[in-house]
Amino acid sequence: MSFPLSDLTSSLRVPPGPVDLGAIDTNGAPGFDGDKKDGETALLALAPGLEDLQERLFAEGKSGGRRNILVVLQGMDTSGKGGTLRSTVGLVDPQGVRITSFKAPTREELAHDFLWRVTKALPEVGLIGVFDRSHYEDVLIARVRSLAPAEEIERRYQAINDWEADLAAEGTTIIKCMLHISAKEQKDRLLARLDDPTKYWKYNPGDVDERELWPHYQEAYRIAIERTNTKVAPWHVIPADKKWYRNLAIGTLLHDALQSFDLGWPKADFDVDHERQRLNDEKPL
Amino acid sequence: MSFPLSDLTSSLRVPPGPVDLGAIDTNGAPGFDGDKKDGETALLALAPGLEDLQERLFAEGKSGGRRNILVVLQGMDTSGKGGTLRSTVGLVDPQGVRITSFKAPTREELAHDFLWRVTKALPEVGLIGVFDRSHYEDVLIARVRSLAPAEEIERRYQAINDWEADLAAEGTTIIKCMLHISAKEQKDRLLARLDDPTKYWKYNPGDVDERELWPHYQEAYRIAIERTNTKVAPWHVIPADKKWYRNLAIGTLLHDALQSFDLGWPKADFDVDHERQRLNDEKPL
Repeated sequence: MSFPLSDLTSSLRVPPGPVDLGAIDTNGAPGFDGDKKDGETALLALAPGLEDLQERLFAEGKSGGRRNILVVLQGMDTSGKGGTLRSTVGLVDPQGVRITSFKAPTREELAHDFLWRVTKALPEVGLIGVFDRSHYEDVLIARVRSLAPAEEIERRYQAINDWEADLAAEGTTIIKCMLHISAKEQKDRLLARLDDPTKYWKYNPGDVDERELWPHYQEAYRIAIERTNTKVAPWHVIPADKKWYRNLAIGTLLHDALQSFDLGWPKADFDVDHERQRLNDEKPL
Repeated sequence: MSFPLSDLTSSLRVPPGPVDLGAIDTNGAPGFDGDKKDGETALLALAPGLEDLQERLFAEGKSGGRRNILVVLQGMDTSGKGGTLRSTVGLVDPQGVRITSFKAPTREELAHDFLWRVTKALPEVGLIGVFDRSHYEDVLIARVRSLAPAEEIERRYQAINDWEADLAAEGTTIIKCMLHISAKEQKDRLLARLDDPTKYWKYNPGDVDERELWPHYQEAYRIAIERTNTKVAPWHVIPADKKWYRNLAIGTLLHDALQSFDLGWPKADFDVDHERQRLNDEKPL
């Protein structure tokens, strides 16, 4: 089985060099020639393959394998990190998934290096790990809000690259995704939350304070992506105004990464005939 | 909304007093008047309600609520703890679920009290936590295999009751389930794994060693259930030879527990009109 890097996957991978987020259409659907209904159908069509591949990865992890996957989801508020998870990772066996949502760091977390808490949350072998926000917050909000000295922020880009390179060397496939929405789309989604009492709990006035710094965040994303877009841990920018495309894109990235592993099923490390005989010859219990 | 304790839920709850596991038909379907197809349909019909209730619990947890759920799954090898999870917990948003599978304790875990590792794995508020095996192993295999002194095993039953009572007092609804299969069914499932190379990884010759102690395990389960079947953390014995019934049973227990919370949606803790105005009046970004 060869690596079936689809058009969609390759369209989303950020090429090395300067990044211009403003030039990426947040409402686009790169690499996919279809509408919403086609996109939803395509994601559902991926599901059986995703389930099968995830089980093979899990089986490999239980049998001495060292591989796993880490999906890093970043994006402005309302960009749909949660909804994506539900629609993609929600397609596979929940036992094979480890999701960690990172909030503002606790006092204990702040007392350690910024990579301490993400290191603790890494998926075990055989699992698909997902970071809903991540160590990138430490060069995004931390940069925009000056939560650390400028030299410390500067230090972090290389620290991230080193940390991710170590992870990759140990067997982790890292899929970094920025869910890219427009400021207009965010405004519409925030207003929609205010119009629906079942969504009030998702609304936080502080999100609007961050929104007012939109250009600063876009700039912080640009710098972060440019400086940490490595061969072993590349960035993908996912146009995310269309929820169906965003879900299909993440589902496809996950599927393609799993398929690239060329996963078989673990061989028996015991004598199958002998075990069968043991069971068939057993004394009454 | 009153507590809609269904026939199925009440059929499965173990009444206080002596327990006779041998008298419970592992191939039965108590409280459900239907066949496999009906059972599968009934579980699917539960899904939208489960999803909605789980999101409400999650929302409550994000808004100052203290409640959550802990499902404890125990059962002999092949009883279907994993398959159940996939079919029930797999129906809800994976972000709202925390699954922990407990294996033989590590050296670090053994250096602590037996409740240390389960305490660390407790779900946060708003989540559905699942223990695939649990602290009950410390009075099951530990008793059968004499992994601790007899006095220590004796001490643990009350220690468990105290620990669970504290959890319940803090807001956790505890649902303890024994997936009850027959020795014959286990044998068939083990043989089936030996007949299918995609299942070899699930087969462990050590499982047959444990199987040979079947009556001892049944006795250890009986004692554990009798001594820890408390009002705040009751046991359910789930006939599990029929996979469809087992899944429906666990799905229903979870659904009924969530429904008993009478969950609304959190109220806004901000001024909705003011926030709408802030967004509509904002300067260009």
